[in-house]
Amino acid sequence: MTEEPPTRVNMEKIVSLCRRRGFIFPSSEIYGGLSSCWDYGPLGVELKRNIKEAWWRAVVQERGDVVGLDTSILMHPQTWVASGHLEGFSDPLVDCKSCHLRWRSDELEVDRCPSCGGELTESRQFNLMFKTFMGPVEDEAGVVYLRPETAQGMFVNFQNVLNTTRKRLPFGIAQIGKVFRNEITTGNFIFRSREFEIMEVEFFVKPGTDEAWFDYWLEERLSWYLKLGIKKEHLRPREHAKEELSHYSRRTVDINYLFPMGWAELEGIANRGDFDLTQHGSFSGKELTYFDDGTKEHITPCVVEPAVGVDRSVLAFLCDAYDEEEDEQGEVRALLHLHPTLAPFKVTVLPLSRRENLVKVARELDADLRKLWMVSYDDAQSIGRRYRRQDEIGTPFCVTVDFQSLEDNQVTVRERDSMNQIRVPIAELKKTLQAKLAGEDFLVLPAGGKVWKTGENDKTQ
Amino acid sequence: MTEEPPTRVNMEKIVSLCRRRGFIFPSSEIYGGLSSCWDYGPLGVELKRNIKEAWWRAVVQERGDVVGLDTSILMHPQTWVASGHLEGFSDPLVDCKSCHLRWRSDELEVDRCPSCGGELTESRQFNLMFKTFMGPVEDEAGVVYLRPETAQGMFVNFQNVLNTTRKRLPFGIAQIGKVFRNEITTGNFIFRSREFEIMEVEFFVKPGTDEAWFDYWLEERLSWYLKLGIKKEHLRPREHAKEELSHYSRRTVDINYLFPMGWAELEGIANRGDFDLTQHGSFSGKELTYFDDGTKEHITPCVVEPAVGVDRSVLAFLCDAYDEEEDEQGEVRALLHLHPTLAPFKVTVLPLSRRENLVKVARELDADLRKLWMVSYDDAQSIGRRYRRQDEIGTPFCVTVDFQSLEDNQVTVRERDSMNQIRVPIAELKKTLQAKLAGEDFLVLPAGGKVWKTGENDKTQ
Repeated sequence: MTEEPPTRVNMEKIVSLCRRRGFIFPSSEIYGGLSSCWDYGPLGVELKRNIKEAWWRAVVQERGDVVGLDTSILMHPQTWVASGHLEGFSDPLVDCKSCHLRWRSDELEVDRCPSCGGELTESRQFNLMFKTFMGPVEDEAGVVYLRPETAQGMFVNFQNVLNTTRKRLPFGIAQIGKVFRNEITTGNFIFRSREFEIMEVEFFVKPGTDEAWFDYWLEERLSWYLKLGIKKEHLRPREHAKEELSHYSRRTVDINYLFPMGWAELEGIANRGDFDLTQHGSFSGKELTYFDDGTKEHITPCVVEPAVGVDRSVLAFLCDAYDEEEDEQGEVRALLHLHPTLAPFKVTVLPLSRRENLVKVARELDADLRKLWMVSYDDAQSIGRRYRRQDEIGTPFCVTVDFQSLEDNQVTVRERDSMNQIRVPIAELKKTLQAKLAGEDFLVLPAGGKVWKTGENDKTQ
Repeated sequence: MTEEPPTRVNMEKIVSLCRRRGFIFPSSEIYGGLSSCWDYGPLGVELKRNIKEAWWRAVVQERGDVVGLDTSILMHPQTWVASGHLEGFSDPLVDCKSCHLRWRSDELEVDRCPSCGGELTESRQFNLMFKTFMGPVEDEAGVVYLRPETAQGMFVNFQNVLNTTRKRLPFGIAQIGKVFRNEITTGNFIFRSREFEIMEVEFFVKPGTDEAWFDYWLEERLSWYLKLGIKKEHLRPREHAKEELSHYSRRTVDINYLFPMGWAELEGIANRGDFDLTQHGSFSGKELTYFDDGTKEHITPCVVEPAVGVDRSVLAFLCDAYDEEEDEQGEVRALLHLHPTLAPFKVTVLPLSRRENLVKVARELDADLRKLWMVSYDDAQSIGRRYRRQDEIGTPFCVTVDFQSLEDNQVTVRERDSMNQIRVPIAELKKTLQAKLAGEDFLVLPAGGKVWKTGENDKTQ
């Protein structure tokens, strides 16, 4: 967050849209909410599903060298000893001796309590993992932690995946799942919360090839955002300085996005080297190595990890898609230019009025299109207002059934961004929309291929 | 679990297949496992994704009257006071005074410790919710619980959903998510574990129509399993007796499945009446009602809830699909007759040998088919063994590239169940497989429509 954002969407508008249209609500809102936990509403859940699906498709389905995994949130506590989380995953905290408020000492710019000016205690480390107890007795023997990342589930299953898939290096494991971090400082809407979802790949490679694979994944991930419509000028790689690197990392580059509050991390690419497999091998006493057919040696692979927060992606895609257009009469149209792959609804069916004969045709269309896509149906208020409502939630196409439809068996298809309208025979509607929506031109790399040279990282900061 | 299962698959075979082929592993296995938590491997994660997708498609996408939601696992603790979980979601436990083992007193058939014969303590209630602390201090003010069901997330958002979607009764909210129960007695593989996933619909209806909607959902859910290939004779509704009903339920019918260990609950349909909305309305002081346009009155809707365990579904679909066929030579073929919608891979591409020219064609096919489906590629060992390997994991179609393919541009398509083989021009392969796999005949109701009359429930028990 190093510089002022240029004039674009502000966070209040996004939060308000999310709340008003059912993308995101504060969790347990009727009870006053639960600090920095969020619920995805009917539209948000579809947007999030689409983002996760697009990621899975790109990193698992369309590749031959990455397989999926879904490991449990509760893991054997020894996992977190080996990974270093039990000792090192902590924030430094101080208490105010007067008002008893608690602060992160590394974020304080003053020596005394920012609230009351009181004296502060010595700083002590506070572990960010949520702790709970498994089994009937709340004692040390039953302590387990909610995972703060999904990565460790993939490392401890390295040998299981190798044995069952018989993959050869290089290959990866991908996982999407909930993680929990008992953060002291949360905020910026869904940007930093205590319960969130991440999408991670652990890509195992031969030592010595890790630097090249790092560059590969950085470009691969950057191009994924571009393919799904994020503007290039809103993405910026940021190289971590040596002293910033996590204990396991040889190199880390964040993919920063220009959020309303400024540039901040959307995804991180880390070269974890052989840290994790070595640690778990040593702590478990199990052999977590790979037999190299060429050299006839057992080696410990290196790992390149692209890891992205699902909720931050949701926020980035929403911010990037948000737009306001003013027409000649000075009326403002708010809309989401969401990529059709991500849009909660692909199509909305609108009968011009609630007359029975129109409704019948519209309902039939609705039911028919639902076999293919998430579709909505709206018959309330004027057609203009209904178009605006769909624009605001990013629906790429509206299909209007009017009185002429009863005569000529045609409907009007209106496109969100251009507002162009065409008449399409009902018999050809599915095919027309299918060509527009599900064609193979989606999820195809933009011309050029190479997006950033990784050497540019430093210059952009 | 009231009667002996007839001769069919036993659990050990399923567990062994799951482990050996990468469907399901014990969690944190290298550290000795974590009691009754499980990790889904590369095949398991795809099977589970497909089940969840088929459910979402059936209950949300294809309907106009159900919307999705994805609420947080950590909720405001008051939620569990209102729902009755804090007080009532517990098991009665006793300790052995001699060997200190702990038992569920309602499951004991003897008065003294089943292990050592020692004297037992008085029974006391043990809450099944996992407890953790949010914020830096582990005190009562920071106590939160891991949700034991997703239902409450939907009830507390009732008004949010109503306001943002403007749905009219009857309408439903659907959710899929992780839940946690600190069960004392776990087991039967993934049947009962401490961390699992559920798929729930809360369907809100006008009071007085709840009984009819209950019958509707029972049949709807039964037919979903049949459409996806579960054998009718392995499903059986079981009506709860009055004294069995949960505190919130007016009527509950379990959909039992004939698991290897016997008949046991796969899904439960409950008529929750207006219990939840009334409780949350009263505890939160917020109006959780619905304005009836007809009567001009504010009413509290009733709720019908079909709720199914994802992991139990995985187990049921695996057990039901498992088969062993003996050929004339006495050789046994193990296979999974999984519905194509659920199969982890839809197609496997097999080059007859590793000769470069064959591999080139096979790799191109593989990359091309991956744009449409989850596809695997196998070039190890004889073609016969490779077919068997795919049969065992339920892949509906194998595509073999042989030397003749280089001449005639055709490949062999082999079907899993019949083992029939046809030659298909490469140019028509996608279309041929598409017709077989993605045709609209999938997910279509079997002839007849009505599956069970609900009155039959009692007789089948």
